Amino acid sequence: MGDDAWRRELIEDLDSGLPAGRVITDPDVVSGYVHDDAEWAPHGTPAAVVRPRTAEEVRHVVQACLRHRAPVVPRGAGTGLSGGANAIEHSVVVSTEAMTTIKEINRRERLAVVEPGVVNDHLRAACAEHGLWYPPDPASAPWSTIGGNVATNAGGLCCVKYGVTRDYVLGLEFVTGTGELVRVGRRTAKGVAGYDLAGLMVGSEGTLGFITEVTVRLRPARLPEHTVVGYFSSIVDAGRAVEAVAVAGLEPSALELIDRHCLAAVDEWKNMGLSTEADVLLLGRTDSAGPAGEREADAMLACFEKAGATFAARSTDQQEADALFDARRLAYPALERLGPVLTEDVCVPKGAVPGMLARIEEAAARHDTLIANIAHAGDGNLHPLLITRSGDDAARKRAQAAFDDIIAAALELGGTVTGEHGVGLLKRDGLAAEAGPAVLALGRAIKDALDPHGIFNPGKVIAPG
Amino acid sequence: MGDDAWRRELIEDLDSGLPAGRVITDPDVVSGYVHDDAEWAPHGTPAAVVRPRTAEEVRHVVQACLRHRAPVVPRGAGTGLSGGANAIEHSVVVSTEAMTTIKEINRRERLAVVEPGVVNDHLRAACAEHGLWYPPDPASAPWSTIGGNVATNAGGLCCVKYGVTRDYVLGLEFVTGTGELVRVGRRTAKGVAGYDLAGLMVGSEGTLGFITEVTVRLRPARLPEHTVVGYFSSIVDAGRAVEAVAVAGLEPSALELIDRHCLAAVDEWKNMGLSTEADVLLLGRTDSAGPAGEREADAMLACFEKAGATFAARSTDQQEADALFDARRLAYPALERLGPVLTEDVCVPKGAVPGMLARIEEAAARHDTLIANIAHAGDGNLHPLLITRSGDDAARKRAQAAFDDIIAAALELGGTVTGEHGVGLLKRDGLAAEAGPAVLALGRAIKDALDPHGIFNPGKVIAPG
Repeated sequence: MGDDAWRRELIEDLDSGLPAGRVITDPDVVSGYVHDDAEWAPHGTPAAVVRPRTAEEVRHVVQACLRHRAPVVPRGAGTGLSGGANAIEHSVVVSTEAMTTIKEINRRERLAVVEPGVVNDHLRAACAEHGLWYPPDPASAPWSTIGGNVATNAGGLCCVKYGVTRDYVLGLEFVTGTGELVRVGRRTAKGVAGYDLAGLMVGSEGTLGFITEVTVRLRPARLPEHTVVGYFSSIVDAGRAVEAVAVAGLEPSALELIDRHCLAAVDEWKNMGLSTEADVLLLGRTDSAGPAGEREADAMLACFEKAGATFAARSTDQQEADALFDARRLAYPALERLGPVLTEDVCVPKGAVPGMLARIEEAAARHDTLIANIAHAGDGNLHPLLITRSGDDAARKRAQAAFDDIIAAALELGGTVTGEHGVGLLKRDGLAAEAGPAVLALGRAIKDALDPHGIFNPGKVIAPG
Repeated sequence: MGDDAWRRELIEDLDSGLPAGRVITDPDVVSGYVHDDAEWAPHGTPAAVVRPRTAEEVRHVVQACLRHRAPVVPRGAGTGLSGGANAIEHSVVVSTEAMTTIKEINRRERLAVVEPGVVNDHLRAACAEHGLWYPPDPASAPWSTIGGNVATNAGGLCCVKYGVTRDYVLGLEFVTGTGELVRVGRRTAKGVAGYDLAGLMVGSEGTLGFITEVTVRLRPARLPEHTVVGYFSSIVDAGRAVEAVAVAGLEPSALELIDRHCLAAVDEWKNMGLSTEADVLLLGRTDSAGPAGEREADAMLACFEKAGATFAARSTDQQEADALFDARRLAYPALERLGPVLTEDVCVPKGAVPGMLARIEEAAARHDTLIANIAHAGDGNLHPLLITRSGDDAARKRAQAAFDDIIAAALELGGTVTGEHGVGLLKRDGLAAEAGPAVLALGRAIKDALDPHGIFNPGKVIAPG
């Protein structure tokens, strides 16, 4: 059977079990679904895009894809930075964008049940109305979906104190590799009945099943935060301040680093005037209650000063403090305006933060590449952003070499190749280097066990054997 | 080859790669390793017991067992309550009791690295010397080991606020089902490189590999707690107080229930005079800092009073408060003095706690069985303890019927058959009922993928296919 006939039959089969309008084949529309935000990762052309509205519709799609051996590429908002949602040639991209119902927010059980397409910020806003809080807050929170957050085990700013998406997933409903709809995990506070399949699904990047519903744990509404601002003349000094905060045993609710390249890019876009004041900006927050919060903020300030801050102060103006955190969130889109961005996501032990920042500066110099830095510095999660001009192939090669050097340095310093963005396509080699062949084989064994027909996002996370 | 010859060759092979004294075959010594604390679960006679001292020695044992197709039964302190460590006929019980080194306690990275045989309380004491805290605190903490805690994903008193063992495991070293020594997880605060194999190992009850080293996350030393004591005349009233605490959005650092049977048994043993004062005791704690803690303790007191406490007060005497929590910890051994105890471990949504307690009372009456109750009530984790006289077979049958009714009721109320003790042998049917065939099949697929020769604790968790 030729490709065309195969594709026609696949689409007929998809269409046959779905209401009209779910299956999209118009190339102009399809082109909006072929890659995520990882501009450097390759992608193919899918046979179709499907936007199901219910778990049963997802099941039909997976079963049809099983019949026609078409890979299923799950897709949330497409804000991923590793190529995990990039289309595979002859695949079916299944978008969760029409599955946006918040089914339950339960104050007594302190949990929420949502469809995978619910946007992170929408869930957070809905929880706030009930005096509750869903902590995971990736910088993409205004756009990214809970399903995508779960698939990538998304982190964010507050996870330095409150943990990552994994720490908030209680239960999941998903379609398996044999086309069954199952529930794993629980609604109770605790539970150890059988293997932790819900936990295994978190961070599996759509390679083990298609998530159709998520039950998340919530916290009581958070307390107001104190903000501490530090300006530094060198990024390594800022790294030393981060290390000092860890050594002092403090528990910041955020500890973010933004370097001069990011500040300049944000200024150029939003005219905030930040880059004239600071070379490197460190933003700390604490949400401990009452006097404990006051003491923690003062202790953080002392750490900043001792590490050589050129200016450090507790922010008394909430609007000003929020504006600085907005600048943090705007850094990535601001840099994207300058050219294609290759995003790093290494995470190192806290004691290795100054050393890792120095190694990034060395890689930038060695490979003549502009590297901007934003970092969830408090948990050692650094995002060097490698920027090239569009179409400059030589620069692109140099950037790739710098990218590889940074990964190698992170592993040398006891770190990981990806702290929160996931492996996708960009970090497959890095994962292989980090895990080693025996652990990679365990991963492959799990993939084969749960997805025996290799239908879910093949080639992502683990390179084809 | 006959059993004797097979056993002789197995023991020779085990011995050949180990220092003298590691392999134990003396039946008197071996008899101390044939079962855990689940008195009702069956057990076989192992071919040998081995007490390795290093990961390499464990690897040798696993490889020898692979060569001879002898099941490996991992064993910590043997304090489990589901039969997970019970010997299988012709197996090799591998005890971690000689692997007790705390390799590292790191204040800056806020982590510890330990061998699996380290006793929970020993780790907690060692962390305290560094101003750090390892939260998971099962009632068995004075005896149980970190390896066993990880294998069963142990809970405890403080997990109502601070989570379970799973929430503290960063990385693991283990011997795989093909006899390789691997490392999974990380030392960094975050990491998403590949599937969460460390998380999958937690709670897998020795069926997927043999854990030889554990890296745990630590917290800063905890703050002093306020204790709130409530006496109730009915267990269902106490359950209503628990529900009220949840509805009020409070975050107790412990919320424990002890019923009149437990109080009487502790009194009979330790003469504490508790049972003359209360029919049901509820113990709440909060460790929020400063005025917030005061407010939270007062709010918990109000919940107790509103639910009908016959007496409720904030404890101002720390010694008295500690004595009450000691009574909680002593309840299980005190009841064991009365006869074989069949321990339940259901966990239900917080709103279902009063209803579940009522269902337990009904089951006790229906089957004419003495059922005592202790509970981590704050997270809905109830431990009905079914007590029979030794040798009374009819009573034993009635108790088994009550046990089954309680499991069915927990599932009806949206709960799980095991909140923290694990499946082992006692809850295999319960797991099958809770998970259903499709999810059980996923579990089997993972078992087969990671333990292709079925060497690790076969028949535990999932019944033989």
